[in-house]
Amino acid sequence: MADIITAVAPVNIAVIKYWGKRDEELILPLNDSLSATLDTNIMYAKTSVCARPDFATDEIWLNGKKESFESERLKNCLISIKKKAAAEKSVNNDFLSWKIRVCSENNFPTAAGLASSAAGYACLVTALAKLYKVNSDVSAIARLGSGSACRSIYGGFVQWCAGVDPQGVDSFATQIVDSSHWPEMRVLILVVADHKKKTSSTDGMKISVQTSELLKHRVQHIVPKRIDEIIDAIYDKNFSKFAEITMKDSNQFHAVCMDSYPPFSYLTDVSHTIIQLIHSYNKACGEVKVAYTFDAGPNACLYMLQSEVFVVISLLKHIFPSSNPEFVTGLTFIPEVPLSTEILQAIDIEPQATDLIKYVIHTKIGDGPSILSDGLHLLNEKGEPINIH
Amino acid sequence: MADIITAVAPVNIAVIKYWGKRDEELILPLNDSLSATLDTNIMYAKTSVCARPDFATDEIWLNGKKESFESERLKNCLISIKKKAAAEKSVNNDFLSWKIRVCSENNFPTAAGLASSAAGYACLVTALAKLYKVNSDVSAIARLGSGSACRSIYGGFVQWCAGVDPQGVDSFATQIVDSSHWPEMRVLILVVADHKKKTSSTDGMKISVQTSELLKHRVQHIVPKRIDEIIDAIYDKNFSKFAEITMKDSNQFHAVCMDSYPPFSYLTDVSHTIIQLIHSYNKACGEVKVAYTFDAGPNACLYMLQSEVFVVISLLKHIFPSSNPEFVTGLTFIPEVPLSTEILQAIDIEPQATDLIKYVIHTKIGDGPSILSDGLHLLNEKGEPINIH
Repeated sequence: MADIITAVAPVNIAVIKYWGKRDEELILPLNDSLSATLDTNIMYAKTSVCARPDFATDEIWLNGKKESFESERLKNCLISIKKKAAAEKSVNNDFLSWKIRVCSENNFPTAAGLASSAAGYACLVTALAKLYKVNSDVSAIARLGSGSACRSIYGGFVQWCAGVDPQGVDSFATQIVDSSHWPEMRVLILVVADHKKKTSSTDGMKISVQTSELLKHRVQHIVPKRIDEIIDAIYDKNFSKFAEITMKDSNQFHAVCMDSYPPFSYLTDVSHTIIQLIHSYNKACGEVKVAYTFDAGPNACLYMLQSEVFVVISLLKHIFPSSNPEFVTGLTFIPEVPLSTEILQAIDIEPQATDLIKYVIHTKIGDGPSILSDGLHLLNEKGEPINIH
Repeated sequence: MADIITAVAPVNIAVIKYWGKRDEELILPLNDSLSATLDTNIMYAKTSVCARPDFATDEIWLNGKKESFESERLKNCLISIKKKAAAEKSVNNDFLSWKIRVCSENNFPTAAGLASSAAGYACLVTALAKLYKVNSDVSAIARLGSGSACRSIYGGFVQWCAGVDPQGVDSFATQIVDSSHWPEMRVLILVVADHKKKTSSTDGMKISVQTSELLKHRVQHIVPKRIDEIIDAIYDKNFSKFAEITMKDSNQFHAVCMDSYPPFSYLTDVSHTIIQLIHSYNKACGEVKVAYTFDAGPNACLYMLQSEVFVVISLLKHIFPSSNPEFVTGLTFIPEVPLSTEILQAIDIEPQATDLIKYVIHTKIGDGPSILSDGLHLLNEKGEPINIH
């Protein structure tokens, strides 16, 4: 079984958003973005790969379902890793000619809209790099699968530099600080019930690039300054500065969606209530204690320090009553200072209908992808997928 | 009763939005705006005023309720009209020193969020101008009551020129075309059920001016071009061009709200469904047939030509089922080409829950304020308000 390689890779949540490509095929972004990598003990993609001379074709299974290998993005990743291996002469040409099998799954629902493709491609590229013994940076290859996947190649806080090269040789991810830099940072992911038909982020970006005047302004004049400022805030562990930039950048991304033509909105009434709640809570605290950020969907991702987790969860349970006995999953937390009636009064938002938030994932900043040595592969010794539905 | 003056004035709906003041007191805007004036036969504010030597103080009743006259905006309007009358020597000084009574009402619910203050101040200023025999333009005085009120001083399509003078002498409204220019134009106002706590437009503008980078960009680089383009579209009666600019400008205004800090959103899930519906309908028609625009609330205002009214109302009834037997009020309309199943299939939006739209007002472009000669005043011969609740 030594020829089966299995990797796990993390989800990342951007605080400076990636929105808009300058090259659709090479997935080159218009602007730098910056994210936190989340702990793979809570959420991960897991991928097993193997190459054998007797495989007739490349095959892939995703979340228990056979999928076509004819995706351009998937093929680009495989070709690029093989090219790199050939250039580095890390494996022999016979091995490079063998067909491969890939089996991948996430431990969180894909439908939750939690950037599963970023974790998935980071994991695939990590496993392939190990298979073909590629040692150099593979974030630019993960980028070919899904832009933001390049940021899941590193732990801690990670910047994706847009670069200027037309071929994208300078468009890769770099680590700003590792996961040990700001150990108190916690993340709550609020999975919001949603029935809306959504514009895919690929389609949404195209529409914004073609039609939004505000996106041009954002890319040229706003993001560069914000990247510098948030890196300083991270270095200095200045939470309120970090939080303010994070919220403003999320808001501006959603403003750009609205300024696109036709416009689209990923935020629902529930998302907007969460936004109001966080601003009201911060105001009641007299200090910015919590930040929200939203990607291409209604789910909120809240950043806060460990000391706030208990009171914020109490607040969420109060304002968004739930019938789910496992409303909060993930890391355990210690009940600390309870929610005060003063804060609740100052917030002045009425409890909402039941189950508008389906569940909450409690997690923290974590490390980049890793190769599993426990032998718990997703392919059996014959190279066949395990756990097929 | 000759000394009681009664005016009616119209609502106006902006197609290029006013958002942001450069002077809070003088209500001077950051950018030009442009609106259509709606028919006073359907929606109006009505105001009676009189001045008598025996009145002890200035008094005002709004929608059947006594209100304080101590509003700066109200006092500014009265003082400015009196100054103009004194400068023009249109009445004698005795008359100018008499206290006044004002009684005003709207024939549509204020709570519907339909720019009632614009119609109200346009009406007040028109009645006062008649009372004090002021003949020159009073739109700059209406502006002191509520910025967009200046646009309700004229009929048809009206531009509010921002001007550059610090005292605002060049910040007034001018008529682009009168109500007869584009007689086929129709307006549907969709009153959306709403329970959200709202940021007032005065507060919202302040937050946007202080915090939104995108607003600066909009004011400097986008609005001037759009004003020129939409005036051309109106002159040429080019509906699809008019509609596209109208929708884009509404979207950009709401994008600016989202880009403000803290952000606020006037649009609800229902508003967003209406936006999707109009874009889908236009796409299904292969031509831009309907435009939406939204002010500081969730209600949609749809512009279309008369020939579209029947099918659009049918579509609204299908997608937004209503238990209201008087779902559509206002102008009557003739059932024409029915809604085709092809269009419904192409639209691909499921019927929504019942009563998300409370009712629809069907109206058209109309004239500016007028003085009533029918003697149906809101003050009786003693100068006391009639119909006090």
